[in-house]
Order: sequence, then structure tokens, then C-alpha cells
Amino acid sequence: MAVSIRALSDPAVTLVPGFEAAGVAAGIKQAGKLDLAVVRSLTPCTGAAVFTTNLFKAAPVIYDQQAILANPSGKRGVVINSGCANACTGQQGLEDAQAMAAAAAHLLGGEAQDYMVMSTGVIGQPLPMAQVLEGIRQAAGSLGDDAEAGHRAARAIMTTDTVPKEVGVVVDMDGVRFTIAGMAKGAGMISPNMATLLVTLTSDARIAPIPARAALLHAVGESLNMITVDGDMSTNDTAVLLANGTALMPEITDTESPLYAAFCEGLEAVTVALARALVMDGEGATRFVEIRVTGVEDAAAAKQVAMSVAKSSLVKTAIYGQDANWGRIVCAVGYAGVPLDPARVRVWLGDLELVRDGGPYQVDEERASQILAQREIPIHIDLGQGEASATVWTSDLSHAYVDINAHYRT
Amino acid sequence: MAVSIRALSDPAVTLVPGFEAAGVAAGIKQAGKLDLAVVRSLTPCTGAAVFTTNLFKAAPVIYDQQAILANPSGKRGVVINSGCANACTGQQGLEDAQAMAAAAAHLLGGEAQDYMVMSTGVIGQPLPMAQVLEGIRQAAGSLGDDAEAGHRAARAIMTTDTVPKEVGVVVDMDGVRFTIAGMAKGAGMISPNMATLLVTLTSDARIAPIPARAALLHAVGESLNMITVDGDMSTNDTAVLLANGTALMPEITDTESPLYAAFCEGLEAVTVALARALVMDGEGATRFVEIRVTGVEDAAAAKQVAMSVAKSSLVKTAIYGQDANWGRIVCAVGYAGVPLDPARVRVWLGDLELVRDGGPYQVDEERASQILAQREIPIHIDLGQGEASATVWTSDLSHAYVDINAHYRT
Repeated sequence: MAVSIRALSDPAVTLVPGFEAAGVAAGIKQAGKLDLAVVRSLTPCTGAAVFTTNLFKAAPVIYDQQAILANPSGKRGVVINSGCANACTGQQGLEDAQAMAAAAAHLLGGEAQDYMVMSTGVIGQPLPMAQVLEGIRQAAGSLGDDAEAGHRAARAIMTTDTVPKEVGVVVDMDGVRFTIAGMAKGAGMISPNMATLLVTLTSDARIAPIPARAALLHAVGESLNMITVDGDMSTNDTAVLLANGTALMPEITDTESPLYAAFCEGLEAVTVALARALVMDGEGATRFVEIRVTGVEDAAAAKQVAMSVAKSSLVKTAIYGQDANWGRIVCAVGYAGVPLDPARVRVWLGDLELVRDGGPYQVDEERASQILAQREIPIHIDLGQGEASATVWTSDLSHAYVDINAHYRT
Repeated sequence: MAVSIRALSDPAVTLVPGFEAAGVAAGIKQAGKLDLAVVRSLTPCTGAAVFTTNLFKAAPVIYDQQAILANPSGKRGVVINSGCANACTGQQGLEDAQAMAAAAAHLLGGEAQDYMVMSTGVIGQPLPMAQVLEGIRQAAGSLGDDAEAGHRAARAIMTTDTVPKEVGVVVDMDGVRFTIAGMAKGAGMISPNMATLLVTLTSDARIAPIPARAALLHAVGESLNMITVDGDMSTNDTAVLLANGTALMPEITDTESPLYAAFCEGLEAVTVALARALVMDGEGATRFVEIRVTGVEDAAAAKQVAMSVAKSSLVKTAIYGQDANWGRIVCAVGYAGVPLDPARVRVWLGDLELVRDGGPYQVDEERASQILAQREIPIHIDLGQGEASATVWTSDLSHAYVDINAHYRT
């Protein structure tokens, strides 16, 4: 069995057969900015979702958790607004989230619980429901199945993002062919745990709820849970997969089948590409940093070390300053909470082995400067004590990050 | 028994009877800058010390850990250099740390193990020993017991600090009187765990090694372990207490005596004042933020919540921008890893109750702006589920932090 995965050249969630989308300016953000998106399937979908583990869950997260449990196989679409997170908004917030889903059902068919809702923006302010409901009406009237319709939806969910994030692949296994596409938003308040950010994934694969959920958990674990911009985990993080089963293929009913493996491979390709795009557009980011940790006893410990380095403000500012200050890297390795022998630690910046046996090795400032001038910075840390590894992605910490976040609400 | 604690008006480690100090320009940093300090007692001291828990321990930390175990009651002094951390420097680093102590012993009397050594500065570069040894010789020849000598020592240990940190108190218990003074350095790579930064504490109290260590652990736990500037724990953190017993008082031999309690109270007053001064001078800091968390089941959980808020880049940049973005505070509370009921959480900014029952309450942006314009920002979070509490101190995250850290080595 041969699996091939081909990336779509102009990806959008609407390039999956049977899906439509719209993005409109509802007036939640400043006048004229796209701020409300609808993605819907013409036929009922298998749905799967993962959510933030923050204990302050936004109202749409609470609503969606109930909706996905109540009805994992009759999903119709998602409604997403930017400009207001509907988080810390109490009972009114829950009613507003419910009303968003009900409005979509009223206009597009099905029940309220067939729709997932997501919100992103400022925490603690009530949703302007007049604008939101009018926006859903507008969006329902302007749904399209072309790439441009998907692009408008992807732009409508942006907050401090500077570019929309859209990815799509066609998976082919011995002539069985299906498509998986996704769009995501997120540039700040990004740190991994279970789910992260707002992500909508569409597919025409035929897959049952249980393997769909397993595939989503696996894909998110290898991608969206492996990134951090600022170490802050949002109250609203949600990733939703909608698979409408319109592809000509046998249904994936368990996690043992070759088709399940092919679906996982395709889904992971999409979520990894979205995760990388999210980091690349991290708030104020000038660098994309890949931190690979190898030689560890288990993968969780490897991730813990990689995240300790990825979250270090001192490492991130040094990379911004193009300063090969490897002492900050080993410092962050040393406080990660993972037992290790400093004398066995090795650190590479690109092809330059900065640290061997816990001390300086190839100190070549000129070569280091060349590597740090690149847009993508590879850092490799080997602890020399096991076989497990992990790779995380992060951005640098720049003046622009402070600019963006010092006056976010004003 | 009445205990009174009076702050010294022009504090210095040398204002404790029997202590001398010097600060000299040894040429480790740029020409002319003070970069080497010696503090010594004219008589042998009880010593106690706490150190970083970073697994990459700097050579002076490894040396000191042996020295304090080998000889806790015959300590003579400390030798401190700035400009080079002597961390990740392998066997040569250990020999250099030992040589610093040996040089002090040769010039000032006693054995090498009677002296503690500390280093701070760039990680991974060897100590320039010619300069260091010449500096120790100069310092030994210029020791003084006046405030100015102490001030020079306090300035010689600074790196990115903008002001020296010196504190001193006179403790009086029913006519028994002793003095405790301290100096500290540290503005970045500051996050608490067991010990933090470089701190030298002098006292003329008569106290045995075991209660001295207990008092130091307690004081550090209530002060230096309660601060964070950037979440990065240094490889070199060391706090040393030297008590020379020249005060007219019975020796403190256990932790049950009223004099021990008075000593603890005085020591904590000194370490708390140093901790506050360190945060106030945190890299790029424009605000001093006190985060008090109450209503928690136990103190460790309270500290965990407070630290989650204190380390949030989004909270810190909002405070820098004078933006009362309380959503970021509850967000950081929500991902702290402590079980809680969002509906019981209350948040105050100064006297303004921003959040009650998990939602917005007194939304008074004008009053919030007044509070955020102050130099000291008090934040109070109540979880409404227990009796324990914790208070931590942090600084904001400003453009200047990025300036300082993007090009630290250059």
C-alpha cells in the first residue's frame, strides 16, 4: 500500500468537496474588517474536537464540549467570530454562544447542536449580539465553495495575525483519494496543552467519530501542542475537525486500518503546516526557531526540556538580537526539571556544535552569526542518555511583541 | 520579650561590627569598571548558604557547596567577581574557583575552604585569572570597614543592575542587640527556586551553623524565592550568610529560642528588602508588581498561581502598557495547574475589584489607569476555597528588557 500526500497549491477549507464558507464584516471589530466566518458542509459530518485545558474556559468552549458529546456524527458547520472572545462572560456568554449556533441552524438547516462556535479577541466583554447575528445572516447568504470564499473565512478569524493560515492536502492510498484542509488563527496567548488556538479542519474522508477523535488528538499532539509563542495558554483554544464522508472510500471505523494511518498522515501534514505557520506569524516574530531535543529517556521529558528552552525569554531575546548566547540555552536546559548529566549535554546551532560534554566546543562566532541571520533557526540539544526525542517550534521575543501587547485593548 | 527592628539609614555589609570589604576594578569587565569584591570578617564566622537548583551549576557553586559542608563554622569571607560567570567551564572552571579562594586565604589568612566564591556574567567563558588574582590582591590591600567600602563592594558585583542593592537592620531584643546587613546583585535571569542571585549577608549575631542554615532557608523562602523577573533560573544563584558572633549575646544554638525568632525576623527584613530592590531594578522594569493570592488550600498552590500570573508575558506587557487587561490575569490563573472554581474567583487591582464570581465587576477604566500609572502595582487574586496565601513580586516586560537582552554579550 502506497500513500502519497500532495499539498494543495492555493489551499482553503472550501477546496474539500461538499464544504462552503464565508467571511463577512459584521461590525464586531472596527468598521469594514472581516470578523465573522461560517464554514458548513452540505451533508452531515463526523465531528471531533479538542479544547483548551485552561480552567477559565470561554463560553463557546463550554458550549462546544457539550455539542460534540451530544452529537459527534451529525455536525453541519462552525461559526467563528473575532474581536471578542466571549470568555469570562458568565451565563450571558453561554446563552450568546448557544444563540450563535441556533442562528446558524435556523438559516442553514439542522439543529443548534449541529454547529460548533468559536470566538477570539478580548476577554471579559460581552458579545455584541446584534452585530453577530446580523453577521451570521450575511454569511449564510454569501456562502461559496471556491477558494476565495475559504480565504475570506480565514481572514475573518484573524486578530493580531498578520497573514491568514490555510493548508490543504490530497491523500491518495492505492487510488482511494480524499482531501483534508484547515485554517487557523493565533499569534499570541499561544502555548500548548491539549488543544491550542482556533483551528477548523475539513475533510471529505469517511471516518467514524471514534477514529476521527483519535486522529485529531494524535495530529494535535504532534503539531499544535508542540508550539509556543509566549507561554500563555488561551481560554478559547479549540480545534474542530469536520469530515463529511463524500469521498468514494470505505468508512474508517477503527484505528487499526491502513486507511486510518493514511488519514492520520494527511491530517498531521495539515496540522504541522498550520502549527509552523502560526509560529512563523507569532506576535512580533522575526525568527522561526525549531528546538529538537534528543537522547532523552522518554518523549514527555524531551518535550519538557525543549519547551523550557522555547519559553525562555533570555533565549528568545538573544535570538532576536542574533546573539549566539548558548549559555542561555544550557541554562534553560538545566532548570527544565528533567534529570540529566551536564557533562553529557551537546548543543548544535544549525551545523555548528556549540557545546560538547557540557562545555564550549565549536565557538565560531562568524558562522553562528550567519545561521542566526536566517529566518529559520535550528537548535538541537542532545542529553546523551536515552532514545526518545521531541521537536517544538517557537518564535523570538522582539520589540514588536512588546508593542503589540502593551496596548492590545486600545 | 519585645523585638524591635530598625533599618540602617546608609546600609552596607561593612556596618556590621568586625566586617571589612573592598570593591576594585580588576579589568574583567571593560576598563575602569568595578568588577571584583571581597567581604571578610576579622574573626571566623558561622556560615550558611543556599544555591541554585539549576543542574548546570557554575564552578563557584560546586566549589561553595563543598566548602560550606566541609567547614560551616570557620568561614572568613567571600570573593565575588562580575563580568564572567565561570559557568559551563569544566575542570578549568573548578580549578579557577578554587584558586580564587586560595588567593584570598593566602592574602587574608586561613584556609581556602574558609572563603566562599561567587561569579556572575557571561556563561561559558573562562575566567581571566591574571586579572582576577590581581584584583583579589588589590582588594585585600584596600579593605575598609566604613560604609563607602561596602558600597564599593556592592557596586563591583553589578552586571545589568542599574543600582546597587544594600540593606541593613539592627535587631534589639530586651537589650540584646545585633546587626544584619546584606548586598545583592541581579536584574535578569531571575526566577526563584531554593536560592537566587548573588547575595551576601553579614551579621555579628552569635549563631551556630544549624540554626543559621534554618534561618537562611526560611528567610530566602519568604523573599528571594518569591520573585521573578523573567522566569529564567541562573546557573550561579548563591546566597551566603556570614555571622561572626562578635555581638554581646548568648549563642543561638537551636531554632526554638526567642533569640532565634528575633534573628529570623531581622534576617527576613533584610532579604525581603533586597528581594524588593532586585525586582524594582529588574531588567527594563518600569513597574514593581505585587501579586497576592489568597483563599487557596495550601501555600504552595497559592505561590503556583501567583507565579503563573507573575511570569505571564501578556500580563507583564499589559502592565507596561498601563492597560487594565484583567482577562490576561484570569487566563494565567486558569492555566496555573491548580484546581479551582472559576465562578468563585475575585481579582483586585489596587482597591478596584475588577473580577467577582469569575466575571467583570468594577469596570472603571479611569480608576484602573490611575492605579497603573503608579510605580507599584498591587494585584490581589482570591480563589475563594481555602485559608492559605502567597505573595510574589515581579516587574513588567518593556521595550528596554528586549534592548538589554538582545545584545547582552556584545
